[in-house]
Amino acid sequence: MEKKVESKSDEKPLISYSDTEEVQIPTAVTFDNCDEESDEEILIGAENKGITSDELLIDFKNKTHVESESPIVPIVFKTTRNTSVTVPERLESSTDQVNLPVEPSTSQASQQHPTFHLRSRTAAINDQADIYEVFVTFYFTSTRTYSLDYDVCENVLFQAEQKRLAGIRWTSRKDILRWIIFLQIGIITALVACTIDIIIEELSGLKYKFLKYQVDGNISMGDLVLPYIYWLLLSIVPVSLGAAMVTYIEPVTAGSGVPQVKSYLNGVKIPRVVRIKTMTVKAIGVITSVVGGLAGGKEGPMIHAGAVVAAGISQGKSTTFAKDFRVFKDFRDDHEKRDFVLGGAAAGVAAAFGAPIGGMLFSLEEAASFWNQNLIWRTLVASIVSSFTLNIVLSAYHGLNNYTFIGLFNLGKFEQPLTFNYYELPIFMLYGIAGGVLGAFWNMLNTRLSRFRARFIKPKFAKVLEAAFVAMLGVSMACAMIYFINDCRPLGNDPTEYPTQLFCEDNEYNAVAALWFQTPEATVRSLFHDPPGSHKILTLTTFTLIYYVFSCLTFGLNVSLGVFIPTALVGAAWGRLVVMIAYYLFPKAAFLNPGKYALIGAAANLGGVLRMTISLTVILMETTGMEPSFFFPIILTLISAKWVGDYFNEGIYDIQVAVNHVPMMPWEPLSHYRGLKASDVMSAPAVCVMLQDKANYIYDILTRYKHNGFPVVEDVKGNERSSGRVCGIILRSQLIVILLKSLFEENKRFWEKEVSIQTFRDLYPRYPSIKHVQIHNDKTNYTINLNIFMNPSPVCANEHESVPKIFNKFRALGLRHLIVTNRENRVVGIITRKDFLYK
Amino acid sequence: MEKKVESKSDEKPLISYSDTEEVQIPTAVTFDNCDEESDEEILIGAENKGITSDELLIDFKNKTHVESESPIVPIVFKTTRNTSVTVPERLESSTDQVNLPVEPSTSQASQQHPTFHLRSRTAAINDQADIYEVFVTFYFTSTRTYSLDYDVCENVLFQAEQKRLAGIRWTSRKDILRWIIFLQIGIITALVACTIDIIIEELSGLKYKFLKYQVDGNISMGDLVLPYIYWLLLSIVPVSLGAAMVTYIEPVTAGSGVPQVKSYLNGVKIPRVVRIKTMTVKAIGVITSVVGGLAGGKEGPMIHAGAVVAAGISQGKSTTFAKDFRVFKDFRDDHEKRDFVLGGAAAGVAAAFGAPIGGMLFSLEEAASFWNQNLIWRTLVASIVSSFTLNIVLSAYHGLNNYTFIGLFNLGKFEQPLTFNYYELPIFMLYGIAGGVLGAFWNMLNTRLSRFRARFIKPKFAKVLEAAFVAMLGVSMACAMIYFINDCRPLGNDPTEYPTQLFCEDNEYNAVAALWFQTPEATVRSLFHDPPGSHKILTLTTFTLIYYVFSCLTFGLNVSLGVFIPTALVGAAWGRLVVMIAYYLFPKAAFLNPGKYALIGAAANLGGVLRMTISLTVILMETTGMEPSFFFPIILTLISAKWVGDYFNEGIYDIQVAVNHVPMMPWEPLSHYRGLKASDVMSAPAVCVMLQDKANYIYDILTRYKHNGFPVVEDVKGNERSSGRVCGIILRSQLIVILLKSLFEENKRFWEKEVSIQTFRDLYPRYPSIKHVQIHNDKTNYTINLNIFMNPSPVCANEHESVPKIFNKFRALGLRHLIVTNRENRVVGIITRKDFLYK
Repeated sequence: MEKKVESKSDEKPLISYSDTEEVQIPTAVTFDNCDEESDEEILIGAENKGITSDELLIDFKNKTHVESESPIVPIVFKTTRNTSVTVPERLESSTDQVNLPVEPSTSQASQQHPTFHLRSRTAAINDQADIYEVFVTFYFTSTRTYSLDYDVCENVLFQAEQKRLAGIRWTSRKDILRWIIFLQIGIITALVACTIDIIIEELSGLKYKFLKYQVDGNISMGDLVLPYIYWLLLSIVPVSLGAAMVTYIEPVTAGSGVPQVKSYLNGVKIPRVVRIKTMTVKAIGVITSVVGGLAGGKEGPMIHAGAVVAAGISQGKSTTFAKDFRVFKDFRDDHEKRDFVLGGAAAGVAAAFGAPIGGMLFSLEEAASFWNQNLIWRTLVASIVSSFTLNIVLSAYHGLNNYTFIGLFNLGKFEQPLTFNYYELPIFMLYGIAGGVLGAFWNMLNTRLSRFRARFIKPKFAKVLEAAFVAMLGVSMACAMIYFINDCRPLGNDPTEYPTQLFCEDNEYNAVAALWFQTPEATVRSLFHDPPGSHKILTLTTFTLIYYVFSCLTFGLNVSLGVFIPTALVGAAWGRLVVMIAYYLFPKAAFLNPGKYALIGAAANLGGVLRMTISLTVILMETTGMEPSFFFPIILTLISAKWVGDYFNEGIYDIQVAVNHVPMMPWEPLSHYRGLKASDVMSAPAVCVMLQDKANYIYDILTRYKHNGFPVVEDVKGNERSSGRVCGIILRSQLIVILLKSLFEENKRFWEKEVSIQTFRDLYPRYPSIKHVQIHNDKTNYTINLNIFMNPSPVCANEHESVPKIFNKFRALGLRHLIVTNRENRVVGIITRKDFLYK
Repeated sequence: MEKKVESKSDEKPLISYSDTEEVQIPTAVTFDNCDEESDEEILIGAENKGITSDELLIDFKNKTHVESESPIVPIVFKTTRNTSVTVPERLESSTDQVNLPVEPSTSQASQQHPTFHLRSRTAAINDQADIYEVFVTFYFTSTRTYSLDYDVCENVLFQAEQKRLAGIRWTSRKDILRWIIFLQIGIITALVACTIDIIIEELSGLKYKFLKYQVDGNISMGDLVLPYIYWLLLSIVPVSLGAAMVTYIEPVTAGSGVPQVKSYLNGVKIPRVVRIKTMTVKAIGVITSVVGGLAGGKEGPMIHAGAVVAAGISQGKSTTFAKDFRVFKDFRDDHEKRDFVLGGAAAGVAAAFGAPIGGMLFSLEEAASFWNQNLIWRTLVASIVSSFTLNIVLSAYHGLNNYTFIGLFNLGKFEQPLTFNYYELPIFMLYGIAGGVLGAFWNMLNTRLSRFRARFIKPKFAKVLEAAFVAMLGVSMACAMIYFINDCRPLGNDPTEYPTQLFCEDNEYNAVAALWFQTPEATVRSLFHDPPGSHKILTLTTFTLIYYVFSCLTFGLNVSLGVFIPTALVGAAWGRLVVMIAYYLFPKAAFLNPGKYALIGAAANLGGVLRMTISLTVILMETTGMEPSFFFPIILTLISAKWVGDYFNEGIYDIQVAVNHVPMMPWEPLSHYRGLKASDVMSAPAVCVMLQDKANYIYDILTRYKHNGFPVVEDVKGNERSSGRVCGIILRSQLIVILLKSLFEENKRFWEKEVSIQTFRDLYPRYPSIKHVQIHNDKTNYTINLNIFMNPSPVCANEHESVPKIFNKFRALGLRHLIVTNRENRVVGIITRKDFLYK
């Protein structure tokens, strides 16, 4: 008996590509599902398959340096293999470890039908330009992504827990805990936001006061070199510091954080994205960049911070501090965690903008895919609590005794109610169209820039240097503008805090310096609320141009910065500029209120770049204290901007996600899936395990393949596990825990009583790599009975099911794997999230 | 061969209960899935099963009159049978038509395991009070409900169409059509709303002017009897007219319409709910009731009107006018129609309140279950267009030349920006708590009243009389109040349009009459905006009490009326009253602005009755032009109200839905489902058809059973279709079309070329009853091959799958049927939406 099994386990499992970017050619190397901690595993993985690292990169090593840990490598590898179609023999001979029993008929078939694998679309990438596109390492590309499991694994252990805990009391206890967590998320997110806010405000205040003092002191001597150098230093030093932290300590903190949170909520796990260390780096990063004077805001990072807070609190433990508080243990699964992160993101927006409803809508519009009234309700409460806390703390800080400083109107409250006439509606639409065009162009420029960066700015020090360079450029342009444009305005109704005289008369201040000597957020406020005639047309024209370029250069640097404020700033600038010009041409048009049109411009530009609608309207309303009667113009503008912009490209967040090859599920299945069936996109044959399988076989497939889900089968004919009858699905992480804890059938009496669903939850979310698992030699033949561990109700589809329908299942049920079966319920193949990735 | 088949078709199919309220005892009679038009079919159905109508109602005929067409009958029937457990033998003997091969072991098992059928919870209803609860015929109970199919049937025909139409051009054509429909929905909904609005305003104006004239004329003679009689007439006549129309012409128009639309969007088809006739009756009904002076608003009916408009336009045909415009034929399925109805409901809210964002949020919060960015985007545009159209038309009507009358602020714009201090927050919370308690109490009273009505007010004329009686009661109470309370205020800052002098001095007007001599909506406006000191405390106390009772009596009458305005009115009244008392006690508390607290009171009461949060906040904001800084108090109030109210009962819309036994899916699976498996709730054995089956067998099961979905099986052992291997699912409607069009295998050459998915769509949504289908005698043995008609990818679950997980599938995928299979993919049973109904 033992002998027989021994010989069975000699059978090398079929290669399949269930979880991978790759399927078509069986030699493809797939790494994207490796365990998180083992960056060096890739080459080992390649070598396991008999491919040296040189071979792996063979087609590109003359072109550019390829980071071997990039998850995109496999695609390219496969691509080239696919175009040359000569692989199998060579590999067959070079591998003695891996046995590849590929049925020739299958691979033949795959070449006959061009639609056999949708993923072969990537194979179309064979002209140079597109190859580089694949190589873009933008933001978080250098880290690998995984899928999250939003489908609850209801195995026997889970059911046992449910039964044990059945009854009203448990439900309400869990409900109460959930509410407590949401309240905490709101409060702590707000406190983090306050801290960032106050530090930025204080440091910026010091900086610009110092600069004003220096300018005032040196102008009399006619020498502005010293202030210029001071300004340079005060920009470059913090920016470099922030960039260095981001680059060397935690690269995932680069950028705004919204795409990361969005991906997370969509079901893509970007490693380390919700750790406390990440949040710390991000907070320091955003403070240094904003104080350093880069074109960015604190909004995106605050959303990210909210998500981290939510993930941290809800799990009751922190990896960064290696501390487990042993609370909230029931919430340790992807599904629960996602709900909390949604609340955290909403609380973050609420704290960033002082916009509770806007925050909730933002997280819905940008992030959520499933609408659940209870979840919305909790999210709203978290947002409210967050903005309330922020309000109290900031009111106290600003010394406002009556605390009626709701949300603090980051963009300044309009004192006069905004009104409009119907003949202005076409103007609003034109603004929207202009915003759409400018925004789409900005997105396009920024995308190109990102590709350029990914290609040429690879070493870490170069990234830091680049950030410093952009900061320097910004300061220099500002200085040049201040120096060359002579825009003096009388003091008295000066809206700036630090009016600098420069070359102006004694009772005047320099309007150009006023624009630059403050944070971008404060500049937006100025543009909204400065009285008419605060600037020359030339000033604002130059400023708009410079800032358009500057913000485009800034976004994509390796620093933590949001895109909202600079986008609003550019929009406000051109919005105001246009009416100034119009007023200059038609001085009788009294309706041309520059503040109002600055707001419309900001909305148009935001719509053009971000492509949000409802949440943006509400956020703008809540941050400016606008009256609801002004909703209509704002929505009209946003709709026009979105429509026009969508004609050219996608919103910047979606572009980032796409450029980074984050496998995010789009809202609707892509059009080229129409008419395809499950069998056209699935990966086959799938690596399966038997309901009762040998430890060494399982160990073997875990080391050999990086897949995350393995169908559990029974009624296997011969050794062909991959066409067994489906009885469940088991995750890699579960198999690792089983091996780690030696949960074998043979020693069941030892663990039977102690094992529960908590055994698995305790290791969540960082399961050890298979490398760290050792099986005793005398146990390799032990049996593992998956019956109580596997998910007995995997979502299946039959092979003729249409892809759009399968897509809907993935989207609606938050799936990670779907097993394709035939009418006899035998495994035919497997489909994973990533099969819907490519556009 | 022919002979053999003949004998096969003799086999009587097994009884199963796939789509029915009923499963446990095989003798249960189930009617809820009958075809729409055939009300009389029920007793026939019962007789088919060998049960006379007397037997059917045997346990209740002494208690109350049972409407035989009520879909609830079967429950009760089953209930009593279940408690006495003596049925099978008797039926076995009495039926010669129906063969019931119930395996004794199964029914034995079902008695051993109390959880075998969740539906046996209804069996717990055996004390008197609860039995009557089941019998409540409230609103739309007397019509039967069906489920809608939101799962797209992707059969071969559908796929053929997809392939034919594949390509970008088709997609964009369909997209453009969709946009056109959404724009039309917005415009037409707004026009309907305008019409209702203007007629109500004009008629109310005439009525109250006439009454004022009468009062002024008769008061000098000291005789108020004549005006009282006029008032009575002017109330009773329109109210009776409206009630008669609702009762006799279209009973589904009773009530606010929100629960109906909500049910529709949830997937429950209430017959005739989206017909043009329904809308006409509803429009006239709401005009007569509001003009008649009942306590109701036009908001709910307008939402319903929006839904009807959307359903009508999107289908391009009207059943009422028997007209098919032959446009938009591609959108003729439940799935597409639902999306349009969502947009229509949003447009309706937008038009009713002049609140575009509120409208969108309302339809999301109350109705949608699946969040799709594109759908939201279209819905928002429909809302915007609707409120814009309304604005233009009403502005023109009111003669406002500058058209800056956005949304028309139904509840009046607050001239002074509302402010608050933090020490007021506890007051807001107390208001919220009070609102929650009062609202929950109101809901409870109203529910009891509905039960009372269902029990004692059954004849149609009684329903009309009741409406007239309530109208009379309202007028009488108002008259008594005006007569006995002497609340005179100086003219000059009189906020009412028709100040009546009554017993006051010459330059004074009667404040009590001012409250009553206008529509409820106008009264809300008065309470929000009247200057402090417009009423006596006694006036408002009496008014609050009367209106609380009056609104409770009104809601549930057989008239078309919304609950929003009376609820807001009651809240505004007590909200204002409380500060008046507080101000009387502490005359120095200057912050006690009565208008502000009326608003808070209205929010609290609305929160307590309706239990909405976000959409309510936004709607209130948009209708009063409130500033966003006042969001926080409103949300705080609403949250308190909702939390407190939820402790006692559900929101009024949900109560209505529950009381009517509309099988609406709740947001989350009910807690008693925890720990249950598919096999515990499924109906088994299921009625199945074979992939190739005989026409007469199919005809037979269609006449015999009312189920709507039949699993299609192959590989049948012997005659046991009900344990065949699943290969698809076919709907009743499809089978009927197949029989109707004689799509037999034997004459395939005649129809093969012509049949397409459009053949089925053409009959949507009113498929003929099986009674209207005749099969030629020589064709009864013809074969039907379901291969190209059936849905080849039904959603399945295995028998061990947990019920909450299955629930999520239903909810997320919008399912109607789910086939339960074993590991060999053989049918084990079937689960339908209705299996999740009972609470």
